[in-house]
Amino acid sequence: VIVTVTLNPALDVTYPVDALVAHTTHRVREVRERPGGKGLNVARVLHALGEPVLATGLLGGVTGERVRALLDATGVPSRFVPTAGQTRRTIAVVDPRDSTNFSEPGPAVSPAEWSRFRAGYADILGAADVVVLAGSLPPGLPLDAYATLIRLARARGVPTVLDTSGAALREGVHAAPDIVKPNQAELTSLLHAPPDQPPSTAAVGRVVGMGARAVVASFGLLGLVVATAAGGWRAVPPEPVAGNPTGAGDACVAALARGLRAGTPWPDLLAEAVALSAAAVAAPVAGAVDLPTYQRLRPRVLITEEGPAPC
Amino acid sequence: VIVTVTLNPALDVTYPVDALVAHTTHRVREVRERPGGKGLNVARVLHALGEPVLATGLLGGVTGERVRALLDATGVPSRFVPTAGQTRRTIAVVDPRDSTNFSEPGPAVSPAEWSRFRAGYADILGAADVVVLAGSLPPGLPLDAYATLIRLARARGVPTVLDTSGAALREGVHAAPDIVKPNQAELTSLLHAPPDQPPSTAAVGRVVGMGARAVVASFGLLGLVVATAAGGWRAVPPEPVAGNPTGAGDACVAALARGLRAGTPWPDLLAEAVALSAAAVAAPVAGAVDLPTYQRLRPRVLITEEGPAPC
Repeated sequence: VIVTVTLNPALDVTYPVDALVAHTTHRVREVRERPGGKGLNVARVLHALGEPVLATGLLGGVTGERVRALLDATGVPSRFVPTAGQTRRTIAVVDPRDSTNFSEPGPAVSPAEWSRFRAGYADILGAADVVVLAGSLPPGLPLDAYATLIRLARARGVPTVLDTSGAALREGVHAAPDIVKPNQAELTSLLHAPPDQPPSTAAVGRVVGMGARAVVASFGLLGLVVATAAGGWRAVPPEPVAGNPTGAGDACVAALARGLRAGTPWPDLLAEAVALSAAAVAAPVAGAVDLPTYQRLRPRVLITEEGPAPC
Repeated sequence: VIVTVTLNPALDVTYPVDALVAHTTHRVREVRERPGGKGLNVARVLHALGEPVLATGLLGGVTGERVRALLDATGVPSRFVPTAGQTRRTIAVVDPRDSTNFSEPGPAVSPAEWSRFRAGYADILGAADVVVLAGSLPPGLPLDAYATLIRLARARGVPTVLDTSGAALREGVHAAPDIVKPNQAELTSLLHAPPDQPPSTAAVGRVVGMGARAVVASFGLLGLVVATAAGGWRAVPPEPVAGNPTGAGDACVAALARGLRAGTPWPDLLAEAVALSAAAVAAPVAGAVDLPTYQRLRPRVLITEEGPAPC
């Protein structure tokens, strides 16, 4: 089973409005709610692909209850640890021009709650084939929370995929996850400088030098670049796909986790990740993929071999 | 006991931000939640004044649970009927310039839920001295819902105060509530034309002609005008009060309900309503009043007698 860890899940609330006008009152005619957070999106994509998955993490308060109910309705199996603090909400106010977002910080997780989570996680690891660690950390957790979970997984021989940002990403990379998946902004932050355009395996490979075993960097329409000690590859989508790019990175992570579990060679794995990301763009909401788009693009993804990471 | 009816309560969520910029993402550092809806604000003000109060209405889903928990924490006794649909949220994004608001419509209340509410309401009426009907109607309720509740109260000899807007106000006025409290916008909507400035008892009195027994119209800093068949009065605050005007109308309604229960004569009642409205402006959030402001202003409210309503 692929275990997805979501330490700071969210209730994603969408308000369609005619036009957002600052400092006025908007009557929202319709409210859409989804279970949110990168790890839950990854779990939903894997579940849609028929992959055995278990979602774990932290949930609290009535907002946490709502997330759990919405997740249960998707059929994704889950085992969450309760927190006293409320799970956060994200509000997306969508008008015809674009989306305006408000993101709550999440609950202050106590040391005792974090300890209970680690105990449950150690338990789950016994049955895990791959662990995905995705999204932000809630207030109260140490910045090396993902590093701790990566080390616990390695001690049990379970490979890990890390997709986060900021200090949590930097700390996590040092614990040597099997795959880390930064996007352009996260790579820039890790390297303290923007990578060349399109990014080279040399630039991406510098993150391998920081500790990650493989780095898959995502660059939207420019595709993916993977750098490992053994070699590097680039995968480019065969055509642009119109739609909603939110969730494309989560679909990419789902493909990487599935490939890691199956032992798929890098060129094939990258092609699947590019096609599944495009299939997420073609689907209306994050956490969903358009399977016909995936099947149409999968054989046509352009793969080129590049040099190994310089390490 | 004063019964407050809130058919469309809300979880009021406030997000302080540095600046709201349309079509960008905002990280909210702090989340404030309050039980919202005009009827609940009225109940909280009455409770703060030491007045016996019972809050009733409809609550549903996890958001309804949250509203109930927050209301319980204020000490206001309540007896709500559950709905299958979720209680609505209102989001206020507050930056130093002003507030930007997003208001959900509320749950689609079923005929069976509305019927259960009426049965519980009939039960509560046995102990009620005054009923306050305040705020919007949720989707699914008939536009004459307040009219129905006013007639049920009259059949038991219980006087009513109505504070709503739009079609619910127009329909409610026809059922002859003891007091209806429109603000300037609501009065304009009822009269199909803006009233004169400052409004005369003649203009306000036209609403008496529509069915209300007394009409107390509120005009912010210009104070209150009451029109009844027996006479009219005007009450003006002795000084401007700085603060947050949200909730001033609810404090006014609380004063009217309390005075109706006590049989306070109109000039005294208007003075209390003006002073309590100002005390709500001086308090930071809706549903709260600054009692020192109330006590300081109460003896100094300017009252003038005007003619009775022309009916």
